[in-house]
Amino acid sequence: MLKQREGLDLVFQALADPTRRGMVERLSQGPVSVSELARPFEMSLPAVVQHLQVLETSGLVTTSKVGRVRTCQIAPEVLSMAEQWINDRRTLWERRLDRLGDYLAANPDEGVPT
Amino acid sequence: MLKQREGLDLVFQALADPTRRGMVERLSQGPVSVSELARPFEMSLPAVVQHLQVLETSGLVTTSKVGRVRTCQIAPEVLSMAEQWINDRRTLWERRLDRLGDYLAANPDEGVPT
Repeated sequence: MLKQREGLDLVFQALADPTRRGMVERLSQGPVSVSELARPFEMSLPAVVQHLQVLETSGLVTTSKVGRVRTCQIAPEVLSMAEQWINDRRTLWERRLDRLGDYLAANPDEGVPT
Repeated sequence: MLKQREGLDLVFQALADPTRRGMVERLSQGPVSVSELARPFEMSLPAVVQHLQVLETSGLVTTSKVGRVRTCQIAPEVLSMAEQWINDRRTLWERRLDRLGDYLAANPDEGVPT
């Protein structure tokens, strides 16, 4: 439980930056090398590598090296974990609204319960 | 577009903290006053208010004051925006996998295209 909590801290932190979201977007189209991943971004390679490390630490991206080429790839199950967390809260909120609607339909003359 | 980008920065930043996620969780069950929201957290009221301000700045939570009581409530459309961003990337990745599967089924003797 603690592990998932810390995991979500790191995942949302990783997604809170437009460059890192851009990298996730690129990688969602398929794996690429680090230099290919860096290409669209107007920043130094060390800056790109730093962002990549944040993504790796969060688990959103994994990398593997074959010869001299390091390839990056997305970890969709980590994306899913973050999506699910948000979805669960949104669903909870919608269910509450539904219950409120049911109550008002069944008790048209009553006020809204607190 | 820029506005949405900045919006996502703030939303993911807001969700990157376990206390703030706890507040979102509480608020997904219905609106509460600030002191009620603060109750389960072992921290000073000013610390709670600071977290609440991060949530308000991101748009995830809105507050309104009636008399001396400030009530907090969740903004589900902002939760949805973050959820949708993640979902779009995950879907893109899954579609790519499907295409790869189709290709391999149609070309059983070929290697994986790069």
